[in-house]
Amino acid sequence: MLNVGLLGLGTVGTGIVEIINERRNTITGTSGTDIRIKKILVRNVNKTRNIDTEQLELTDNFEDILNDQEINVIVEVTGDLESSYRYITAALNSGKHVVTANKAVVSKYFGELSALANEKNLAFLYEASVGGGIPVLKPLKEQLELNEITEVQGILNGTCNYILTRMINEGKDYGEVLKIAQELGYAEADPSADVEGHDTLRKLRILATLALQADITEEDILLDGISSINATDVENIRKMDSTVKLIAEARKTDKGFTAIVQPMIVKNSNYFANVNMAFNSIAFKGNNVGELKFYGAGAGKLPTANAVLSDVLDIALGTYRKGNPLGKEDLVNLNESISGQYYLRISVTNDEIRDKVEGITREVLLDGEELAILIEEIRLAEIHELLAGLGLSKGSYFLAKIAD
Amino acid sequence: MLNVGLLGLGTVGTGIVEIINERRNTITGTSGTDIRIKKILVRNVNKTRNIDTEQLELTDNFEDILNDQEINVIVEVTGDLESSYRYITAALNSGKHVVTANKAVVSKYFGELSALANEKNLAFLYEASVGGGIPVLKPLKEQLELNEITEVQGILNGTCNYILTRMINEGKDYGEVLKIAQELGYAEADPSADVEGHDTLRKLRILATLALQADITEEDILLDGISSINATDVENIRKMDSTVKLIAEARKTDKGFTAIVQPMIVKNSNYFANVNMAFNSIAFKGNNVGELKFYGAGAGKLPTANAVLSDVLDIALGTYRKGNPLGKEDLVNLNESISGQYYLRISVTNDEIRDKVEGITREVLLDGEELAILIEEIRLAEIHELLAGLGLSKGSYFLAKIAD
Repeated sequence: MLNVGLLGLGTVGTGIVEIINERRNTITGTSGTDIRIKKILVRNVNKTRNIDTEQLELTDNFEDILNDQEINVIVEVTGDLESSYRYITAALNSGKHVVTANKAVVSKYFGELSALANEKNLAFLYEASVGGGIPVLKPLKEQLELNEITEVQGILNGTCNYILTRMINEGKDYGEVLKIAQELGYAEADPSADVEGHDTLRKLRILATLALQADITEEDILLDGISSINATDVENIRKMDSTVKLIAEARKTDKGFTAIVQPMIVKNSNYFANVNMAFNSIAFKGNNVGELKFYGAGAGKLPTANAVLSDVLDIALGTYRKGNPLGKEDLVNLNESISGQYYLRISVTNDEIRDKVEGITREVLLDGEELAILIEEIRLAEIHELLAGLGLSKGSYFLAKIAD
Repeated sequence: MLNVGLLGLGTVGTGIVEIINERRNTITGTSGTDIRIKKILVRNVNKTRNIDTEQLELTDNFEDILNDQEINVIVEVTGDLESSYRYITAALNSGKHVVTANKAVVSKYFGELSALANEKNLAFLYEASVGGGIPVLKPLKEQLELNEITEVQGILNGTCNYILTRMINEGKDYGEVLKIAQELGYAEADPSADVEGHDTLRKLRILATLALQADITEEDILLDGISSINATDVENIRKMDSTVKLIAEARKTDKGFTAIVQPMIVKNSNYFANVNMAFNSIAFKGNNVGELKFYGAGAGKLPTANAVLSDVLDIALGTYRKGNPLGKEDLVNLNESISGQYYLRISVTNDEIRDKVEGITREVLLDGEELAILIEEIRLAEIHELLAGLGLSKGSYFLAKIAD
């Protein structure tokens, strides 16, 4: 019998209760184990909820859960960063396994929490923190035993992918699609964590640290979001028989690593081009298994709850991989060496700008009120220097890598 | 310590030895378990091999392995059907876990071997039998605990996919590409098991039986291969902004199930359109997790060996799901009800043929030496009746479903 202390009864927490209610008999029947939600931490125990709470024991005091000796697993889905760090630490220190869907806390305290769980011989699992419902972190950890993984790539944010898909498919402008996405619940009122790429960056931090077996922190990752893309870019990208995706990628070479989140223009025949709307996909390459790619719902109540519960089941059955999955490789940050071919559109044009970009231009796509060019193979840092030299702010241009 | 008795030292067997030699220290270091290949069954112990066999104990007598009390896992990669059935049964009966890459034996004896392993409280694992290197059967089994799965689909044969990709991309004829595929080792001298779809059918038998939790045998699956496709079809399909794939799919409804392997014409914007060359992909849908898709190398020495070893590691660490994964749903075969829109090209034309197909034609694509039409929504069985009535043999027409 696994007794769960659930922290949070928002969207994902509600989904967890729903799936357990639906599947409890099946789980008991096939696995011989029983999973019960014993107590739930909420801010307000009297709030009206979209779920029947009569059978549920709600509390607004974490200590009630921590001190309940029958509770052997804490499931953290509050989404808050610092309080969840305190909850997780306290839970591990008092001998309880931990499952979380919270990428912010995993990203910030990855090394510390992994080491603590390992020291206490407890599970610390976070499948739902990357790729929503997609089972990817468990397969990744498992492949690490048989493979050297040198590359990980992904479309990790459903909001950005939803916006970009509708812009490209329907030729719409950014602001228009963002508004639709907000109305439909795909984007939040303040969309910056998604559209500026911070959410994607945290997920890459987790993926890259596991895949490359080195501590690749949020600060180690170059970041550019999608918020400056406009209808001109959409038109140009469509003409290139391509689409655009916010791609996170990290690579290991003999000399070190690179890690970056950036808009990428991918040909329609590229695998990632058909990962559309709110779906996510993660790819990695092992020296034995070759390329593997995983695709599924990047967010949503039931997919995320499903991922959380797959971790809980692994604890109930003892079928998770024990030990600290983080590696100890000491790699040098080589982001300064990142290079490629790029697409650049600048919203203001004048002779100085035309003059400065001419030297790096492979092809001019548009020269009018806006300037759009394809840039020949170049170090990304050089483009950034040039843009800074021209005094251009982030909102006044859109830069995207052209995928190989 | 896990002592492996390896049955077969062909391509996959050699890959297993190579990966263990490469990763043994890492595996021991991270998992605390040691994996050793103790004995290998081969036909000829004196044959010269592409691998250093000095450290390996070869035998041509299965009893040597069966009676070795130190060997606790049998890894079967001979590829032979009936002898491997005897080996697997004997191994389970004498208390040894079994891992196999052999889809023929899993497909034919799925229920019997699963039950025997369960009765003996042993592992019977076969990740490599479907999708080559792709970790898909383990995630599928795990998702079954939390989900009702009603649909599974896949590109399951690398040879067919390689041939179809090159035909579409390069506008080449079937015979020409088959010859190239044979020269490059992607197709065998006798390619019929692949191009006629038998290999795909066996893999669907395994996938569908797991996913739908019902015994869906080889005989339950409708089958059509790719060998009658020609350059005319390629031209027509390209004009439809589409490509063609050999797709296996099984579905469960309230009333029963359908299961079919057939060529499908998919729009270039469809996910499966970008699964190219020898790659495979498997998709399934759960009521909670939603759509999941897995992509990777469908065959090859190291990817397949990697999948076999991931099963071996799960046994070493005790992290596989115990119990019999097969379900007991009693579903009615509804293949007669399968319907859709279809593409049909007939190589011989005459007035009788023109007359008979007219009634089901939505659009005529070509009417000359060959006849090519799009067929309006219809039951597949009706098309088969019509073709049989015209006395047309399988080689004289190409029929493909047009994906929704």
